Amino acid sequence: MPELSITAPQDVPFIDISREFDAPRDLVYRAYIDPELLAQWLGPRRLEMRVDRWDPVDGGAWRYVHVEKDGTEYGFHGVFHGKPSPDGIVQTFEFEGAPGHVSLDSLLLEERDGKTVIHTHSVYQSVEARDAMVQAGMADGLREGFDRLEELLGRLVPVG
Amino acid sequence: MPELSITAPQDVPFIDISREFDAPRDLVYRAYIDPELLAQWLGPRRLEMRVDRWDPVDGGAWRYVHVEKDGTEYGFHGVFHGKPSPDGIVQTFEFEGAPGHVSLDSLLLEERDGKTVIHTHSVYQSVEARDAMVQAGMADGLREGFDRLEELLGRLVPVG
Repeated sequence: MPELSITAPQDVPFIDISREFDAPRDLVYRAYIDPELLAQWLGPRRLEMRVDRWDPVDGGAWRYVHVEKDGTEYGFHGVFHGKPSPDGIVQTFEFEGAPGHVSLDSLLLEERDGKTVIHTHSVYQSVEARDAMVQAGMADGLREGFDRLEELLGRLVPVG
Repeated sequence: MPELSITAPQDVPFIDISREFDAPRDLVYRAYIDPELLAQWLGPRRLEMRVDRWDPVDGGAWRYVHVEKDGTEYGFHGVFHGKPSPDGIVQTFEFEGAPGHVSLDSLLLEERDGKTVIHTHSVYQSVEARDAMVQAGMADGLREGFDRLEELLGRLVPVG
């Protein structure tokens, strides 16, 4: 399984993430941009994902909800800054359980020998808000989500 | 003249700004949210400001251009995250002369004995991008812009 790298430098409000996927860049991009595909991998397996809005255009809004088996909902929303493309997606991000704390997330898909490395760079409004995100266990959800993405990409790639 | 405070902590990609204005909060908010008023104060006096788009709603886009006397244009654009209100305006910000460098800016208007303190907190994607913004002379343009805002607010306040 490719290694997931998560960096959260002390006293600087960033989280940087990267992981390689054995799939072409356009396919990885599609799994991000198509809400029906996104809902199949983003987040831990135990949660159902409902995409209320996903409008990946310059200024487009997005909102999705992760739903526990008992019905508890975790909502997230934001807007896209600039036109999303395989060269980059920039969006704001707010967890509705911590309203008023917004991050600016950018995604870059790097092509490398037919494989694709996902890089994300998130900047927070304070180091405390960044630390809270790390302590909320985002790494576990992320690892599981990326494993699901790898499985999904395996199903999407045409078998040669 | 009230003091302008600008803080750019070393190695942390923030710029924090604050200044007091002798005007009620709702009036200061109006000067931000109404594009016809905004164009009368934002930026240095030597530049004409043209607002191409200013849609202060959740997910609304904005773009404005500062124009030199010789016709040179400096464009800026972004989107609003969340519904703007006197309690806060959160927006992305990109100078089109440095494409790909985006900041997340938040504005807070604090009421204090009938006066209003403007606080802004901007977070950049890197310390280098923050430093470039400081070195581009943003303090001078800001100081002049805030002086113009003070003059505008003086004209807007009904003389009792």
